[in-house]
Amino acid sequence: MSGQHPAIGRAEIIAVGTEMLGGGRTDTNSVFLTRHLEELGIEVQAKSVVADDFQLLERIVAEALARTELVLVTGGLGPTDDDVTRAAVAAALGRPLDEDEAIVAAIRTRFVRRGYEMPSINRRQGMVIGGAVVLPNAVGTAPGQWVEVDCKVIVLLPGPPRELEPMFLQEVKPRLETRVAGEQIVRRTVRLIGRTESHAEERLRPLYAAWRAQVPPVTATILAGRGQIELHLASRSIDPAVARRALAGATADVEQAFGRDVCSTDGRALEEVVGDLLREKSLRIAIAESCTAGMIAARLTAVPGSSAYVEGGVVAYSNQAKVALLGVPLSVIEEHGAVSEPVAVAMAEGARAVLGAGVGVGVTGIAGPGGGSEGKPVGTVVVAVAGPGPDVVARTFLFPGTRQHVRVFSTTAALDMVRRSIQFPA
Amino acid sequence: MSGQHPAIGRAEIIAVGTEMLGGGRTDTNSVFLTRHLEELGIEVQAKSVVADDFQLLERIVAEALARTELVLVTGGLGPTDDDVTRAAVAAALGRPLDEDEAIVAAIRTRFVRRGYEMPSINRRQGMVIGGAVVLPNAVGTAPGQWVEVDCKVIVLLPGPPRELEPMFLQEVKPRLETRVAGEQIVRRTVRLIGRTESHAEERLRPLYAAWRAQVPPVTATILAGRGQIELHLASRSIDPAVARRALAGATADVEQAFGRDVCSTDGRALEEVVGDLLREKSLRIAIAESCTAGMIAARLTAVPGSSAYVEGGVVAYSNQAKVALLGVPLSVIEEHGAVSEPVAVAMAEGARAVLGAGVGVGVTGIAGPGGGSEGKPVGTVVVAVAGPGPDVVARTFLFPGTRQHVRVFSTTAALDMVRRSIQFPA
Repeated sequence: MSGQHPAIGRAEIIAVGTEMLGGGRTDTNSVFLTRHLEELGIEVQAKSVVADDFQLLERIVAEALARTELVLVTGGLGPTDDDVTRAAVAAALGRPLDEDEAIVAAIRTRFVRRGYEMPSINRRQGMVIGGAVVLPNAVGTAPGQWVEVDCKVIVLLPGPPRELEPMFLQEVKPRLETRVAGEQIVRRTVRLIGRTESHAEERLRPLYAAWRAQVPPVTATILAGRGQIELHLASRSIDPAVARRALAGATADVEQAFGRDVCSTDGRALEEVVGDLLREKSLRIAIAESCTAGMIAARLTAVPGSSAYVEGGVVAYSNQAKVALLGVPLSVIEEHGAVSEPVAVAMAEGARAVLGAGVGVGVTGIAGPGGGSEGKPVGTVVVAVAGPGPDVVARTFLFPGTRQHVRVFSTTAALDMVRRSIQFPA
Repeated sequence: MSGQHPAIGRAEIIAVGTEMLGGGRTDTNSVFLTRHLEELGIEVQAKSVVADDFQLLERIVAEALARTELVLVTGGLGPTDDDVTRAAVAAALGRPLDEDEAIVAAIRTRFVRRGYEMPSINRRQGMVIGGAVVLPNAVGTAPGQWVEVDCKVIVLLPGPPRELEPMFLQEVKPRLETRVAGEQIVRRTVRLIGRTESHAEERLRPLYAAWRAQVPPVTATILAGRGQIELHLASRSIDPAVARRALAGATADVEQAFGRDVCSTDGRALEEVVGDLLREKSLRIAIAESCTAGMIAARLTAVPGSSAYVEGGVVAYSNQAKVALLGVPLSVIEEHGAVSEPVAVAMAEGARAVLGAGVGVGVTGIAGPGGGSEGKPVGTVVVAVAGPGPDVVARTFLFPGTRQHVRVFSTTAALDMVRRSIQFPA
């Protein structure tokens, strides 16, 4: 609850960077920030992307601050000439911009620790707007700034998400928590795999109606991508426990409707669910990949601590690699073709045997754009899972879309088959 | 060329729709519009997404029109209560909003032709701002509007891309062509690897000054990420060949200044450059990955046609996998540790030998968050490249940041070492 200040209820986000105007890069920070602001009950009413232009940014910042109670400005805090955020915001507020010796010293130390001298242009990153609270950057050189302006707040955050996200969570969110009115938005994500978006939507529609009618209501947004469906549930209440109970009820409804197609109800990604299952059963996994070429191994090992259950893998892109590294008999490839259930099974069993793992997974397919035929068009992908135990399952998929799309869908399908093999053994 | 009007050189885009603020949906229209405006020589200086809020939109439209010469407003032209664009723009301009009987009749005909009666709410789509030119919608019900305001222009376009795109191309672009100065913007991207952003910037600064001073000037934006630097160059001229020549000169300056650190000057990604080099030399590559665990193979094979030069790879996550699949002697691991130059070299040579390839690359490192020690902290990564020919090079890096960050930087560093080994053999 706010003490001396009126509560902050609305916000705008300004991303600074000419490169985000063309389409080559998009502003992903605003999605992260919006989600967290909503959790605090702060509504984002507008967001914008502005070129690296001092006068334009000065004007846009002043206008946004006149319209709303909280302005978050992301990016443009680098050391170079086209990083104009600090100076433009100072000008918009009519405040001085002064070098802070302590910040410059900290930046210099960062360089020295890596064996470099600090380039003189990095001094610019030590410039602080009059009256600002400096927000330390645990990951990069540019600190953030929190500036109180009458009853409003403007916050400067670095552009790289890996710097912005921890700074927002550690420095900005706790300060905002003391400045909001009280109703909290609580969210929960349920992941489904094995349904199309349309089929999921049909089955969800009666649930939506029931959720909207209850108190507090639960709202749902469905998002499909990468071969899976995410259902984002949200509820709001002054007492977050009440909102959480409403979400638990809605989650139970989804589990009832979708059964084994529910991958997680607590936000865990598929690769985390598979990792947790492997760890629980003290199993290790070996991966043999052709068309996905390392993407399954990379996704499993993106989870910290995955060395506890990932033994290793083989990227068997050529037939020669399938024979030499996985012991797939050349006769099986010649008889059935490289993209076939017998080859996928031999790859899964070969990986498991060669690496001495409890579970083996094999993936072979035609990602395109070339390589398709009438019988096996582009998008044909075969997944086999060997283990745990003596069981082997294989399944042939036909995925639509581009090369990258087929590869991503194949990765999701393979990890989901591993999940089901462990969670629901035959 | 403009006749009675001064030329339009700058624009802003406003997308209307609360649903685009959350992150579930993104504004893709602005990417389409920006590309076409740039072709006309019109620079997009800012773009924003605004909630379905009458008063807020009225204010934001008025402010944008005061800042720039052309404002494109997309979305919010539907028939429902939360479609506020027509009324908000009329209010911002202080003009009336009147029903146009001909538009309503055309909308009614669309419904009747499909066997429906027109819902009364659709009359709203026939409301026209005073003085506007109505832009017919070949695909949907909502017409667009072109409004002249003193020497400026504001255009209302429907939100669905399949309605917006033909309307822009058929109705808006031809009108804009008569209002621009005639200059085209031409762009070129140069990629650098092996420098920090600050160091690159210091060396580029004198070039920036020279480029700005020449005719036509060349502008540059620097972007760092994933362990590489992108330099986006742009120039504008009535004759695009002149702008392209200016960019060629600037590109030559960069090549002179950065030598072997220039990865590409034609926009190709690192993995494409490596692929093209392998193809040119008729070489095939084998990849042995520990901490990157498939990311190098996945990135190389993201390029269509990469089966011509990618033989395969091994994800040797455990020591057991390094020994069994790559023939790394256990004694070398025990003596030097799994993260060491001798092990990386043995991995690169092992992958090359086992897979019968011309080039082998080996990567081993500590991605974190666990596993670091005083001598080998988190972020320590060793890359070795064996070949082409008898040469073997190895290098130890120390990367900052999260697990994912270390893995991505390692992937870039490894591919760049392959590039240099082929491009500049010892």
